[in-house]
Amino acid sequence: MAIKYELIKECKQSGARLGKITTPHGVIETPIFMPVGTQATVKAMTPEELKDINSQIILSNTYHLYLRPGHKLVEKAGGLHKFMNWDRPILTDSGGFQVFSLGDLRKISEEGVEFRSHLDGSKHFISPEKAIEIENALGADIIMAFDECAPYPADRNYVKNSLERTTRWAKRCKEAHKNVDTQALFGIIQGGMYKDLREQSIKEIIDLDFPGYAVGGLSVGEPKPLMYEVLEYTTPLMPKDKPRYLMGVGSPDCLIEGVIRGIDMFDCVLPTRIARNGTAMTSLGKVVIKNAKYAEDFMPLDPNCDCYTCKNYSRAYLRHLFKAGEILSARLVTYHNLYFLLKLMENIRNAIKEDRLLDFRKEFFEKYGYEL
Amino acid sequence: MAIKYELIKECKQSGARLGKITTPHGVIETPIFMPVGTQATVKAMTPEELKDINSQIILSNTYHLYLRPGHKLVEKAGGLHKFMNWDRPILTDSGGFQVFSLGDLRKISEEGVEFRSHLDGSKHFISPEKAIEIENALGADIIMAFDECAPYPADRNYVKNSLERTTRWAKRCKEAHKNVDTQALFGIIQGGMYKDLREQSIKEIIDLDFPGYAVGGLSVGEPKPLMYEVLEYTTPLMPKDKPRYLMGVGSPDCLIEGVIRGIDMFDCVLPTRIARNGTAMTSLGKVVIKNAKYAEDFMPLDPNCDCYTCKNYSRAYLRHLFKAGEILSARLVTYHNLYFLLKLMENIRNAIKEDRLLDFRKEFFEKYGYEL
Repeated sequence: MAIKYELIKECKQSGARLGKITTPHGVIETPIFMPVGTQATVKAMTPEELKDINSQIILSNTYHLYLRPGHKLVEKAGGLHKFMNWDRPILTDSGGFQVFSLGDLRKISEEGVEFRSHLDGSKHFISPEKAIEIENALGADIIMAFDECAPYPADRNYVKNSLERTTRWAKRCKEAHKNVDTQALFGIIQGGMYKDLREQSIKEIIDLDFPGYAVGGLSVGEPKPLMYEVLEYTTPLMPKDKPRYLMGVGSPDCLIEGVIRGIDMFDCVLPTRIARNGTAMTSLGKVVIKNAKYAEDFMPLDPNCDCYTCKNYSRAYLRHLFKAGEILSARLVTYHNLYFLLKLMENIRNAIKEDRLLDFRKEFFEKYGYEL
Repeated sequence: MAIKYELIKECKQSGARLGKITTPHGVIETPIFMPVGTQATVKAMTPEELKDINSQIILSNTYHLYLRPGHKLVEKAGGLHKFMNWDRPILTDSGGFQVFSLGDLRKISEEGVEFRSHLDGSKHFISPEKAIEIENALGADIIMAFDECAPYPADRNYVKNSLERTTRWAKRCKEAHKNVDTQALFGIIQGGMYKDLREQSIKEIIDLDFPGYAVGGLSVGEPKPLMYEVLEYTTPLMPKDKPRYLMGVGSPDCLIEGVIRGIDMFDCVLPTRIARNGTAMTSLGKVVIKNAKYAEDFMPLDPNCDCYTCKNYSRAYLRHLFKAGEILSARLVTYHNLYFLLKLMENIRNAIKEDRLLDFRKEFFEKYGYEL
């Protein structure tokens, strides 16, 4: 087995899980947020900076790497870890979400998905077998099955067909997976916002016996309360002895709510993407750095933060850098946002240890300005 | 006096000078190259990274900082050092070169230069007094007089008028300068490519007695041999006990040739600008990283370099980052190019110590692919 999951404890107040995952590239303490390095780089960051802020694992995107520079090139380079100079764990998605997002540029069949590259319009075909071939070449510690993520809203029939195809594809992925000892293949649960379909998907996917499971098909445009509701009836049916990964979720409130509902792993481009647009997540809510009110504000981005950015630079300077289009702006705000989320996850883990995650949520939301 | 220059020795082989400048923010070993931080940031770099590669002093641009964020804001922030989190020496230019480069957007009179901002077209006026007021507010260790830099080619009359105005303006700058104890005001020698006009400018500017002198009006489009020729008759007429700064020069061959002709300080956007375009300076000549031949080249950018970039990343990865438009590409190549030039300056200083700078030039040019 490529990975081992250990459930350390459950929070007596919330039921949230504290655990650890041992991978070929080291141990991950869960619950954890995974910074996204789409094109074999977490945008604007070096691997050393990611380590400075305690990134335990990063995610990279199969679809993007397949198109550029190509998985065979990455394999020749010695795999993704070596190519990008990152020696800690990596998770790759399957590319499914990206190709389904291409809309008119893709055509789904039972065999797989035919699509045109967003880069040059060239024609490609990804099947479950092909997705696993690519992920095997990239060599991440955790790889994801090729699934079909239904949009929101979607009618019952569509969702049912899509989850059943996801099961058949999951089986094909498992059969195609070559590196069972060095790469853990996770199954993905679909079923949209329909309770009975979620139950069907959970049963089918868990019957295939993967070393970990993702909850897919959430954070696709549905209201947050609906996402929380789906999680509430989904996670209790998932095995306790395997990690649970909620895909595409990264806002502070959703991270806390997800952990309370039994999730161990998260990823999202949100902290890095909004950073490049000059928006910081802080303990006092969002700071949109280009706003005129920060022009002569010599306070740090977040007065309660002790990251490199907050220790050394003022809002006035960050605003200047942003308005001047300077790369350092993207660097400093990205650094802060990732630090903020990873620190939040650390605080969440500590609150679980101390059986006070509901209290922590209340305190955090009061400062951050979120409604419970 | 804000600074003290000490001439340590002259190379017996070449006559090049080894020296040190003591400033309010530390000692600079000369000859030195100054990375350019136009908008209060050396593009793509943090101050810590600049220190890692042994940047002793950086340059920032008065024209840009005056327009954005404004010198009064920088002053309120506690000065440029504090604003940008850089505690080593800074040199600011006067903005003269930038406003003269605006072409149709500026109008010169004896009083000063009226111009329109390249950012928003707003109207501004900079006189020698205003330039010094701005530089005093920014608070750099070394500040430059407001001069008129004649273009190349330019006729004798134009150059003569312009150098004489530069002298009158230098006098006004000196009179306007308030922080004589904490900021050293350098005079600038003009005179274009005319030997007698250079001699006239040297005499007039040196009569005003500045703590350091720049050779201006070079690297403005003239052929390199002509620049070397001007330096050959200019530097012998400059005082030995003051630092000499050749403005706007940063290609490896010109740095070596400039030092051999008695120059102590250089600045240029070249290494940082070409880095963002994916071009690296290496011991084997230029590497244009986007070229197809590097697609599967797993060698470092420069096999003879031990910088962070060369120790950790391949040409194939750097090419991928560049083609994917990733910020890390600009970061890693900028880091390397500045490291390369600062290491070159260190090697030049060592060669002067050992009286073998002409030998060093020969060895360097043979590898680098330059003609002597």
